[in-house]
Amino acid sequence: MPSSSPPNVSLEEVAGNGLLHRRIFLTQGVALIGAGGLTMLSAGSAAGADPPNIPPWMQAPGAGMSGYGSPAKHEDKVQRSGIGSQPGTTGSGASRTPLERLNGMITPSGLHFERHHSGVPDIDPSAHRLLIHGLVKRPLVFTIDALLRYPMVSRIQFIECSGNSRPNLSPAPPTASCGAIHGLVSCSEWTGVPLAILLAEAGADPSAQWLLAEGADAAAMSRSVPMAKAMDDALVALYQNGERLRPENGYPVRLFLPGYEGNMSVKWLRRIKVTAGPTMTKDETSKYTDLLASGKSLMFTYPMEVKSVITVPSPGLALKGPGLYEISGLAWSGAGKITKVEVSADGGRTWGEAALTEPVLSQALTRFRMAWRWDGGPAVLKSRATDEAGAIQPTRDKLVADKGTQFLYHYNAIQAWSVAPSGEVKNVYT
Amino acid sequence: MPSSSPPNVSLEEVAGNGLLHRRIFLTQGVALIGAGGLTMLSAGSAAGADPPNIPPWMQAPGAGMSGYGSPAKHEDKVQRSGIGSQPGTTGSGASRTPLERLNGMITPSGLHFERHHSGVPDIDPSAHRLLIHGLVKRPLVFTIDALLRYPMVSRIQFIECSGNSRPNLSPAPPTASCGAIHGLVSCSEWTGVPLAILLAEAGADPSAQWLLAEGADAAAMSRSVPMAKAMDDALVALYQNGERLRPENGYPVRLFLPGYEGNMSVKWLRRIKVTAGPTMTKDETSKYTDLLASGKSLMFTYPMEVKSVITVPSPGLALKGPGLYEISGLAWSGAGKITKVEVSADGGRTWGEAALTEPVLSQALTRFRMAWRWDGGPAVLKSRATDEAGAIQPTRDKLVADKGTQFLYHYNAIQAWSVAPSGEVKNVYT
Repeated sequence: MPSSSPPNVSLEEVAGNGLLHRRIFLTQGVALIGAGGLTMLSAGSAAGADPPNIPPWMQAPGAGMSGYGSPAKHEDKVQRSGIGSQPGTTGSGASRTPLERLNGMITPSGLHFERHHSGVPDIDPSAHRLLIHGLVKRPLVFTIDALLRYPMVSRIQFIECSGNSRPNLSPAPPTASCGAIHGLVSCSEWTGVPLAILLAEAGADPSAQWLLAEGADAAAMSRSVPMAKAMDDALVALYQNGERLRPENGYPVRLFLPGYEGNMSVKWLRRIKVTAGPTMTKDETSKYTDLLASGKSLMFTYPMEVKSVITVPSPGLALKGPGLYEISGLAWSGAGKITKVEVSADGGRTWGEAALTEPVLSQALTRFRMAWRWDGGPAVLKSRATDEAGAIQPTRDKLVADKGTQFLYHYNAIQAWSVAPSGEVKNVYT
Repeated sequence: MPSSSPPNVSLEEVAGNGLLHRRIFLTQGVALIGAGGLTMLSAGSAAGADPPNIPPWMQAPGAGMSGYGSPAKHEDKVQRSGIGSQPGTTGSGASRTPLERLNGMITPSGLHFERHHSGVPDIDPSAHRLLIHGLVKRPLVFTIDALLRYPMVSRIQFIECSGNSRPNLSPAPPTASCGAIHGLVSCSEWTGVPLAILLAEAGADPSAQWLLAEGADAAAMSRSVPMAKAMDDALVALYQNGERLRPENGYPVRLFLPGYEGNMSVKWLRRIKVTAGPTMTKDETSKYTDLLASGKSLMFTYPMEVKSVITVPSPGLALKGPGLYEISGLAWSGAGKITKVEVSADGGRTWGEAALTEPVLSQALTRFRMAWRWDGGPAVLKSRATDEAGAIQPTRDKLVADKGTQFLYHYNAIQAWSVAPSGEVKNVYT
């Protein structure tokens, strides 16, 4: 219980320019900090002791119940960004999750990013079929009802388009929101049938090292998948955040490959062909290859690298004068769990360790938080994630030195946001 | 990788009437089982080796992207049930989560249950205020923008109306879906400010043992909350499943008290008054008290008890002939984590242990799964949960012996579903 004479608890500074110890976000820390340290935030205003006035919405009964709810109308600006199609196409392009408007680790399904190669097909689930064929003893075809009979597993995991964050390869830092730059990543609870079970039923040939996964969109989006991944943790996913998949995320069934570049998790899955080698589809030859500075390209670069981004503050969310702030963001890695996120307020000169919100799950978005006492002077905020494989986010300079600026995928450099004395936040390369 | 000559792996029976060992749901088990045991499921049909025909939805580009997505139109029957208001009222009543149509642990926000005492107020967030007053040094008033400045925490936790499952107190087992009986429970990722921080800022009097929480609905729904809970893990919640709260779940701000009966997590929170004792509001005297068989009533029975329910199969989801099935359900406890869920297929004569889906979190819904080989004969399915405090679900007979049948809240008895040879599933008391 709070004391009437709060002890003189000071918030320990752990790095330059006002970064404070993460204990403020730990359970025991709440009482400790609450007992004194945070009173300097005082975002609340002094009030009278009487109950507040009765607002209009308390003066008559409100709306009734509904079969399926929607966000508050006052939040109607919280939308996916960049929803236009590429020139000359219908439904080919991407929309991005507004990361800077969200909190926690789950992405609401309505705001999960989209990346389509020929729009969202309107699939009749009763007519949809999944075929497993190729180097198998028994080619099998599954209805959705049949798939729903199998044992399922559920996992909270991210999916990231390998083209995420590409705007930051332009010569000058783009003026855009955090979501518009980095919002091709989202995190859901996925539930489905382990692909290994279905492959075993079909009797996949032990010499087969690959498979082809094909979607039922007009692009017949297709990728080759190593058999080892298929037998490890691949899901034939039917549910997203508790309910059946959304149309733009593969309804009625998608492949889900944890930690791998997003477009391998083929949506609207209609065919798995077991093959001796990779199929070399258009979607892994003309696209989704990694051009290096040397002019050579890498193929089959599947796992998404360790990465993080500060979502608040970020461009468009100006600070309102000096004082205490929460710096909050997301970290993730295709290699497993995030073990550490460091934050800098002085452009990377000094770093302090952020608090990670439990549960920290393998191949899931991890929310990190850091307290910051902004003195009103210029600041440059950065975050730097480390994963359980020991990988650490590179600087942009290092990434560009390694890969040049002509590559299109797997950008995972440290993001820098500058904070001006006015409170304005900008994307900067530094 | 699957073998072309699968080893003769048998699925171990762990309890009567066909219940199988949970290893089928464990990672290593997938390959093992997949290699032979599950081929008897064969829900897939034999197919030709050629690619399938090109369906209509692959013959033209699909729909474009959208700012905020919706469920597939083919899932439009997946709705909250019981959305009518009580006679003579507007917006007073409850709607229930269709548990039997969902999977995983997260409840999509659009299907989170509702319980309103005077409808859903249409609150302008810029005009809404939260007042902290009463036995405090400094009464404080917070705008939503002010609350958004504070350090936040996120937790995946359930909320259950204490009136959940009440239909099962009727003399004859009601003919209703699992959700219509037990769907006043849902699970979300909640993000908010620890209430302890705000109480400390206001300088709550150390002698104050209680507080009053009041909502900004026309009912001014109000409950007394022990100060110990407020200082422990209570949140002033602003986000649900990543985005800002939904209107029917308290937008723009609600109290969230993990594990406590749902209506104490006061929605549309506008006032917290620090008090010496409980306020004895109408919502904790005329309602939300527990009538015992003796005629006495209990007040302030806060934590929700250990509980579980099989969601699939359940009434309305008939089995389609003998064979292998996944029995799946949810377990939860206000006391902490679920440690064990046992399933019976012979009405409780023998029990086998179900697989729990990780992560198993404190005061969260926990998904359990069990494999079952149904021989086509009559069966009675039950689940029985145990929590980390050692509490175990009672039988209905035991609960009724203890509390009678006139009580209204905290029904947590074991649910029995009968399966007829026709495959039909019914609610039974046994």
